[in-house]
Amino acid sequence: MKILVVMDSFKGSVTSIEAGEAVKKGIEEAYEHDVPQVFVSPIADGGEGTIDSIFYQNQEPTSYSFVQGPLFEKSVIAKYGILNQTAILEIAETSGITLVKKELLNPWEATTYGFGEQIRSLVKKGYRDFLIGLGGSATNDAGIGMLSALGVDFQDENGKSLGYLLKDMRKLAKIDCQGLLPELKECRFKLASDVRNVLCGENGATYVFGKQKGVKENEMQEIDELLLNFSRLTEEVTHKQCREHEGSGAAGGIAFSFLSYFDSRLVSGFEEIASLTGLEEKIKQADLVVTGEGMLDSQSLMGKVPVAVASMAKKHGKKVIALAGGVSKDAEKCNQMGISAFFPTIQRIANEQEILSTQSTKEAIRKTTQQLFRFAQLFKGNLNK
Amino acid sequence: MKILVVMDSFKGSVTSIEAGEAVKKGIEEAYEHDVPQVFVSPIADGGEGTIDSIFYQNQEPTSYSFVQGPLFEKSVIAKYGILNQTAILEIAETSGITLVKKELLNPWEATTYGFGEQIRSLVKKGYRDFLIGLGGSATNDAGIGMLSALGVDFQDENGKSLGYLLKDMRKLAKIDCQGLLPELKECRFKLASDVRNVLCGENGATYVFGKQKGVKENEMQEIDELLLNFSRLTEEVTHKQCREHEGSGAAGGIAFSFLSYFDSRLVSGFEEIASLTGLEEKIKQADLVVTGEGMLDSQSLMGKVPVAVASMAKKHGKKVIALAGGVSKDAEKCNQMGISAFFPTIQRIANEQEILSTQSTKEAIRKTTQQLFRFAQLFKGNLNK
Repeated sequence: MKILVVMDSFKGSVTSIEAGEAVKKGIEEAYEHDVPQVFVSPIADGGEGTIDSIFYQNQEPTSYSFVQGPLFEKSVIAKYGILNQTAILEIAETSGITLVKKELLNPWEATTYGFGEQIRSLVKKGYRDFLIGLGGSATNDAGIGMLSALGVDFQDENGKSLGYLLKDMRKLAKIDCQGLLPELKECRFKLASDVRNVLCGENGATYVFGKQKGVKENEMQEIDELLLNFSRLTEEVTHKQCREHEGSGAAGGIAFSFLSYFDSRLVSGFEEIASLTGLEEKIKQADLVVTGEGMLDSQSLMGKVPVAVASMAKKHGKKVIALAGGVSKDAEKCNQMGISAFFPTIQRIANEQEILSTQSTKEAIRKTTQQLFRFAQLFKGNLNK
Repeated sequence: MKILVVMDSFKGSVTSIEAGEAVKKGIEEAYEHDVPQVFVSPIADGGEGTIDSIFYQNQEPTSYSFVQGPLFEKSVIAKYGILNQTAILEIAETSGITLVKKELLNPWEATTYGFGEQIRSLVKKGYRDFLIGLGGSATNDAGIGMLSALGVDFQDENGKSLGYLLKDMRKLAKIDCQGLLPELKECRFKLASDVRNVLCGENGATYVFGKQKGVKENEMQEIDELLLNFSRLTEEVTHKQCREHEGSGAAGGIAFSFLSYFDSRLVSGFEEIASLTGLEEKIKQADLVVTGEGMLDSQSLMGKVPVAVASMAKKHGKKVIALAGGVSKDAEKCNQMGISAFFPTIQRIANEQEILSTQSTKEAIRKTTQQLFRFAQLFKGNLNK
């Protein structure tokens, strides 16, 4: 029996790869003979883990850039990968929220400058195609930092250059693109994101995602207005209107800058990564597919990894089961969405911190899988008669 | 496929019957055709649910006695059953801890008098064989109340009759058995209990179980000494030494009185009930057995229902799976004890009260079983190749 394991990350607990390997271990432990062949194919939706998912197996190695981090004072080593001449980047690597201690989160100083540096260096190396994972940024700068690193100059009303932090934008009156790296005209950017929000307003980046990035209630309006001013000035120089583009608010609004200044389009992270990792071909060759995610919930199932996997598997007549840290009361609806059976991995009543720890989540996944496939073997013989 | 369901109660959440019926429902929901035949065979260890387990199916109906409750002021309607001329009683019915509000628990006044009344009435009706479930009492009176109802007179040093509550025993100097119901000499009592504690001392009824019955720390010693005094006076009149008998401390020490005054022996609740419900024969006819309990924990597995069921099933080459509300970290050891696979039924992180409620426990059991048997059906066809 060939089993393909395609787990989404359990956010905050285990990565897609960790979850997948725990499933593999559990299955292998369940058998004393006729051990199934288990293949782990990591997946991501464009957030953290995108690069690792794509480069998990027998692919090119990943590389690193040394760039500005999410906060002005600190540099970071940011991973990227090259596959089929496409550079694969994650904003979480240069400007990620997990790189900043919670108490230091500060939208006025958090910047995507380092992400721009990474792009500049790859453009200089000759790369023209980019797949960018937009999840998990610490920033709310609408990509101003990135644009600065790529040569855009932000000026006050007297034409004096400003910095590139959000706090500098209070004086923003003019955007000068003369210094923009010319090769960018030849570049194509695919932006992997599952965010549908626009740049400004109550459904915009600041009001919806600002709080988790350290925006205080009484700063919301000012920051939203700064982004609006930036977007209006941008429209003047780019002659594009992207502010209302669905998804332009992704990653603190950096999607807006990509869409306005470069040849960019928003794509489904799942589909891109599925395509790059040959997921559909792997599903065709499997007898059974195991998928899953942190919380299985019928309300939010649309577009989530388990349902996307189930829908791909259905095309090829393959059965899918799902594991999740927890399942909601109405999770039974998953059965109608192509998931033959689903199982929570939570083992017992315990405090949340313990349940969500990486170690206990890995163990819970391994044990649940192990017992499931021990159970499955009972049906090998004359049961089901 | 024939599936036998033998669930212990999830104590405080669902009875054996409720758990069993939730499993049955879950299995039946999992199949669209070839629905397995599911048989629920309730089980108990001598605690609450003993009578219901025995009389679950196609047996004689149960009856009721109207007797003194666990507290002096209130009467209760106490269930019993008759099977093969054996009267089956539960101390929890007349003197149970669930009959008393927590704040009213009071060892000085909690009494087994009503239990004695129930026995007296059954003896008068001609019954001579008794199976008694000793779990779940609110009392710590060493059976003094019961003895009083059966005709024993407790006297002070002047030969003056005392009451039968623990608080009256401070003056106990003499026990007069002349009034004891004479038919009791012809009676045989089987005491179903899983308690191994003795009557007195630090491993005795008061020190080990007193607290949950409302004994305050500063009362422990006095109460323990009152029971010791009672036991010494008992030895003088019965010429039996039962105080150190393993299990004599069961149900607030009532086991001591049974052993001292009557023809009694402690038995395994599981074995008696298994025998009365024909469990072994049912297992022989099943293709698969589903068992379980509130918490599956290798430390405490010895003597618990799932392992006892697994061991009985093993004799007949039948496979057993277990469901539990939660499973401990070391529960994998269950696999070595004949449980092919085990599954926690907890669905998600939630507050303890919600998880343990009867309704959500039933739902959790039903859903877990439903998904498991949906999963099992995947292995009917060409999987496992």
